[in-house]
Amino acid sequence: MNTQEHPQAGTSSLGPQDKVPAAGTPGAWPRQAAARRLPRGRVGQASRMSLLDTSKYSQGSVLGSVNPDLASERRTASFSVEKLTARLDGGAEQTRIRRAVVEAIESDPVFSRENQYFQSQNERYEAAVRKAVHLQRKMHEMGWTESGPELKYIYSRALSGDVAFLLHRVFMRCISVLGSDEQIAKWIPPATQYRLIGSYAQTELGHGTYLQGLETTAVFDITTQEFILNTPKISAMKWWPGDMGRSATHAVVFAQLYVQGQCYGVHPFILQIRSLQDHSLCPGITAGDIGPKMNFEHTDNGYLMLQNVRVPRENMLNKFCEVQPDGTYIKRGSPKINYFTMTTVRISLISDEVILPLMKACTIAIRYSAVRRQSKLKPGEQEAKILDYQTQQEKLLPQLAAAYAFHFINKYLQELLNRGYREVQTKNFDNLPELHAFSSGFKALATQYCTSAVEICLRACGGHGYSLLSGLPSLYTKILASCIYEGENTILLLQTARFLIKCFSAASAGQPVPPSVIYLSVMKAGKCPAKNKLDFLSPDIYTEAYQHAAVRLVSSTAAKLQDLIQSGVKKHEAWNQCTVQLAQAAKAHCHYITVKNFAETVEKLETEAGIQKIMKHLCDLFALHGIFSNAGVFLHDGYLSGAQMDMVTASYLDLLAVIRKDAVPLVDAFDFTDKSLNSALGSYDGQVYQRLYEWAQKSPTNTQTNPAYERYLKPLLHNTLSKL
Amino acid sequence: MNTQEHPQAGTSSLGPQDKVPAAGTPGAWPRQAAARRLPRGRVGQASRMSLLDTSKYSQGSVLGSVNPDLASERRTASFSVEKLTARLDGGAEQTRIRRAVVEAIESDPVFSRENQYFQSQNERYEAAVRKAVHLQRKMHEMGWTESGPELKYIYSRALSGDVAFLLHRVFMRCISVLGSDEQIAKWIPPATQYRLIGSYAQTELGHGTYLQGLETTAVFDITTQEFILNTPKISAMKWWPGDMGRSATHAVVFAQLYVQGQCYGVHPFILQIRSLQDHSLCPGITAGDIGPKMNFEHTDNGYLMLQNVRVPRENMLNKFCEVQPDGTYIKRGSPKINYFTMTTVRISLISDEVILPLMKACTIAIRYSAVRRQSKLKPGEQEAKILDYQTQQEKLLPQLAAAYAFHFINKYLQELLNRGYREVQTKNFDNLPELHAFSSGFKALATQYCTSAVEICLRACGGHGYSLLSGLPSLYTKILASCIYEGENTILLLQTARFLIKCFSAASAGQPVPPSVIYLSVMKAGKCPAKNKLDFLSPDIYTEAYQHAAVRLVSSTAAKLQDLIQSGVKKHEAWNQCTVQLAQAAKAHCHYITVKNFAETVEKLETEAGIQKIMKHLCDLFALHGIFSNAGVFLHDGYLSGAQMDMVTASYLDLLAVIRKDAVPLVDAFDFTDKSLNSALGSYDGQVYQRLYEWAQKSPTNTQTNPAYERYLKPLLHNTLSKL
Repeated sequence: MNTQEHPQAGTSSLGPQDKVPAAGTPGAWPRQAAARRLPRGRVGQASRMSLLDTSKYSQGSVLGSVNPDLASERRTASFSVEKLTARLDGGAEQTRIRRAVVEAIESDPVFSRENQYFQSQNERYEAAVRKAVHLQRKMHEMGWTESGPELKYIYSRALSGDVAFLLHRVFMRCISVLGSDEQIAKWIPPATQYRLIGSYAQTELGHGTYLQGLETTAVFDITTQEFILNTPKISAMKWWPGDMGRSATHAVVFAQLYVQGQCYGVHPFILQIRSLQDHSLCPGITAGDIGPKMNFEHTDNGYLMLQNVRVPRENMLNKFCEVQPDGTYIKRGSPKINYFTMTTVRISLISDEVILPLMKACTIAIRYSAVRRQSKLKPGEQEAKILDYQTQQEKLLPQLAAAYAFHFINKYLQELLNRGYREVQTKNFDNLPELHAFSSGFKALATQYCTSAVEICLRACGGHGYSLLSGLPSLYTKILASCIYEGENTILLLQTARFLIKCFSAASAGQPVPPSVIYLSVMKAGKCPAKNKLDFLSPDIYTEAYQHAAVRLVSSTAAKLQDLIQSGVKKHEAWNQCTVQLAQAAKAHCHYITVKNFAETVEKLETEAGIQKIMKHLCDLFALHGIFSNAGVFLHDGYLSGAQMDMVTASYLDLLAVIRKDAVPLVDAFDFTDKSLNSALGSYDGQVYQRLYEWAQKSPTNTQTNPAYERYLKPLLHNTLSKL
Repeated sequence: MNTQEHPQAGTSSLGPQDKVPAAGTPGAWPRQAAARRLPRGRVGQASRMSLLDTSKYSQGSVLGSVNPDLASERRTASFSVEKLTARLDGGAEQTRIRRAVVEAIESDPVFSRENQYFQSQNERYEAAVRKAVHLQRKMHEMGWTESGPELKYIYSRALSGDVAFLLHRVFMRCISVLGSDEQIAKWIPPATQYRLIGSYAQTELGHGTYLQGLETTAVFDITTQEFILNTPKISAMKWWPGDMGRSATHAVVFAQLYVQGQCYGVHPFILQIRSLQDHSLCPGITAGDIGPKMNFEHTDNGYLMLQNVRVPRENMLNKFCEVQPDGTYIKRGSPKINYFTMTTVRISLISDEVILPLMKACTIAIRYSAVRRQSKLKPGEQEAKILDYQTQQEKLLPQLAAAYAFHFINKYLQELLNRGYREVQTKNFDNLPELHAFSSGFKALATQYCTSAVEICLRACGGHGYSLLSGLPSLYTKILASCIYEGENTILLLQTARFLIKCFSAASAGQPVPPSVIYLSVMKAGKCPAKNKLDFLSPDIYTEAYQHAAVRLVSSTAAKLQDLIQSGVKKHEAWNQCTVQLAQAAKAHCHYITVKNFAETVEKLETEAGIQKIMKHLCDLFALHGIFSNAGVFLHDGYLSGAQMDMVTASYLDLLAVIRKDAVPLVDAFDFTDKSLNSALGSYDGQVYQRLYEWAQKSPTNTQTNPAYERYLKPLLHNTLSKL
């Protein structure tokens, strides 16, 4: 791997390329001179003409000499970028593995994302299938396995998720977890060898998060020993499953099980939906693609309608329940461990689908803000870098701090879940409610926070951020989906709230509660002891403020709920009337835990002084930004006074100027390659205008002829249209 | 116009169609029965197969019987929907004209937007040009003129802006306003007849809002009496102008004027960029399309590079300044009126590009929320409409209130601008600074608020909102641009803030200030007098709270600025250190004016009781939502106590349940046709699942064959790929 791709490898000091005069800056515009030697006649169609040598379009060849405005930012890093990268990866060895995986994938042209922004949904899908098929070869060639250390970097860091058959993997996991040994033996080998392609069909047109409401039916026919699956009405049509629209031959389909007229609830069934021979739809199957979406063009999200589709009795996944030949319904064992496993896998998506995209957005927006100059800060001077404006810092730096905050809390959550997994294996289910509550709330907070953060990054880049070539629009439209999938956020927050209310009641009654909510039992009435703005740089001060706010919101909502019920309002109605505040309380709880964890993480960094110092600043910023932005929560009962809020504001704004100095090194530490960012604004060299221009010329709007000219413009201009 | 398109015409009571059993509901699923009579063999490719009669795809034929869940919402309207529509339009006659325009356009298939979500950028562009050309014929045919009452409805309500040559209109306006009589006589007639197509080239790759920084040069060559235009470096390339990428033959280009070595600042020049004969690029011109964007696929936003392009001296627009043959630079008259005219035109975009899209988003999300059922509110009951959940109400109803609030403040601003226009015509420029400050701040507040509001509507529709077929993604990606174009919002807010600080200083010194900011001089220290939650339904109470907050933010920021300067910080640096708070103060000012105007508007509705009552509720909701969401601002100095904030919260949540009852009639009053909404979720009949399914089948992912099958899937499944 060359230093171009990972320029910060080994050192954060200036590399030799920084001394080359940068193209696109006032002193270096040599290519235009060449262009002027062109005959002064017609220059020709834009698409076929370029002042710049577009034949060397690939990133890092023509481009690559670092813009001095970005180089100067790197010269003054207060810490070792490489060491911070290693810390984020979990060690230098992990960094090495990650870089090797990324290098292997990115150097293979089949995996290129170069033309992605110009492709139609059909083209994106075809490319994703091509990549998925090629990936099998690649993994074999590289010696990568499903259980190797490389796996976690392949899909996220190296491929940016832009590949098919992700639901095929869920299909296999589902069978592995919920299927009997016989079922696993029958289905997993051919699935692993792609002799069939699976999907996971749960969501219906009319039902998402509320699984009990699914309407697809599976009726057991005792005479033929088959289940008959049906889509009884349009709202029961399966809708959204990935890989199902155009690829899958099989699917795990969730349906209400009926045996002898009795409903036993939702169960999973394996169905064949397309012929393995010619890919035609199987009898009774109607399926297709659900059409265009905000993102995920590469995925064939599908619909599926079933009309008297019969599958043998053995196709119901039956590790934990079974319909016997005589129609007897049997439950066996506890599915808890296995459902828990599937849940934790979902949560692990957050790292790839939520935190990485935010890190990318920060990298793009901050690098761009260090080279974009606009207006003057000081009369008579050169135009200023927009990153030097307080308002721009206030947009971007809190998002950068959030990227670190959520990275650390996610690591913490992963550890909790791993511990939880070990516990449930020993039949200790004690911590499951806490883990579920925390992971639900965390999923909601992280997706919501990071989605807003990416949007702020996009908007902060002005018009150029709005171009798909900036990479920001696709980051935004993709992360937005995370607020919706894997459980709608409001519903998840209310699940967390239910746990909090329960624990609060228990704590109030003197009963023991799980560790993470013990704080709910020690509501200290007091006031914040901070006396000046520097006091607010003490983690104890702000962590306690967050804790106080969370307790107040939980307790006041619990009181309102109690009051309503005591005044005669029915329980479910009282609950509904409190949900806005319950969701707020759940968010405050998760926000508190996130701040507390960040502060604790910083403390543990004591041996790495340079890194600890800048991480402490980021932690302070994350915490104070939250107080500044949610001032009402902290002022409400006078825990903070107005004067103290002014101190918070002062410290918060001071921090912006401090962190600004390290902003570029802090995003460099995320260590994204240019190919992975796929952004004309965010590349390591900061040659944004040159890159925007060169990339635009690859657009089909320039490379394809303009049919509107002969059809409409020419007749119009030549006035041969019938007279108006 | 049939009642299908405008079902609320004449009455808000139940129409006869409501009695027809609705397709897609449990009782009515007749088409499936028919489908089941198909042979039980292979049903065939999804694309060629449908359980539903897709030959009658056009909206309102197969579909159209109103979903009972939506019908019931309309039965209980507390006011006359038709009367409210007329009030929003500015009178029943306006409603009639608008409907006639919409009907004429929508009944013409050339203007159809039916396949819009499936089209590539090239296809969208071609369709936009086709529509623009056809529109000329249509206007002639209908007898519509550029000065007629129909014009304002054509582009926004009827075409949803999805048409080409919008920048050609700006090109003409620019010449009309800044050109001499001779220039107008020369250029306007051929432009009007489309014998040339113009664009307006101001923004450059390196410069947006800060116009003084433009780098394109125009050097006067006294020997040939020409201006020589050049793009001296890549950042000077014109970038973004609409109609320029592929259509325009001419452009008004803004460049720094140099005469005999002296720079006279930015001036507009008319340039030909493409041949009128064969549309090839003119000598010295490089131009093309800037590539894919988040939206505006129909517009050919372009780039333009100039190399020694010569235009005659007469091509500089010279109503207000001229370079004489001997190189003398002359200024004449005051361009104030004319620049003012161009500014007001920009502001008028807000109505079409910001408020209408929010109204559409509310219509879609609220109608959908009235038919979408999910989970149970009460155990044992049917699944509940999601609109019955407090959390869903809290997402959508404040956005609905905002749509009304911004509609009314926009009307008020238009009146102010019209009055301002009359004043400047009599050389009275006194009110210009106030108007500029207000319109800048209003543009920023409205675009930011409404963009967030549309995003909330999108997210509130879950997975289906994420489908392009919902119409919400394109509303969002389009309105997002409004935060960036016509002046970046942060910069605009700071312009407003500069005005506020100036007025505050003047007021403090006892000098007179413009009417809208007189309130800054009467800072009452006091506390809010409200004693219970009902007091917060008094406009006086909440308007004063907003006023108090605005004064406090302006005065405290002015004090900080003063302190910094007195402590020796340079003025420009002190300003930069206050900008986060200055922007906040400007927003608070505009928010206050918006609330105050809404309250005053409601008061004037006294003769129409039904409407006044519901508008009063919306005004209260808008105001209390703002206090609830920005609680810190009101609690900071104790103007509101924590106990009073609880009252605000209680009243705010109470209002949700009240307004919820009229939510559907309130969006019906916006009176959008189904074609104009172009949404599978938002149509008048509420047949969302049926429509999603039918529309999806028109997607190229279903209508085109799957090349990935033969190329990748078949070899994979048949295991003919080289062995792994």
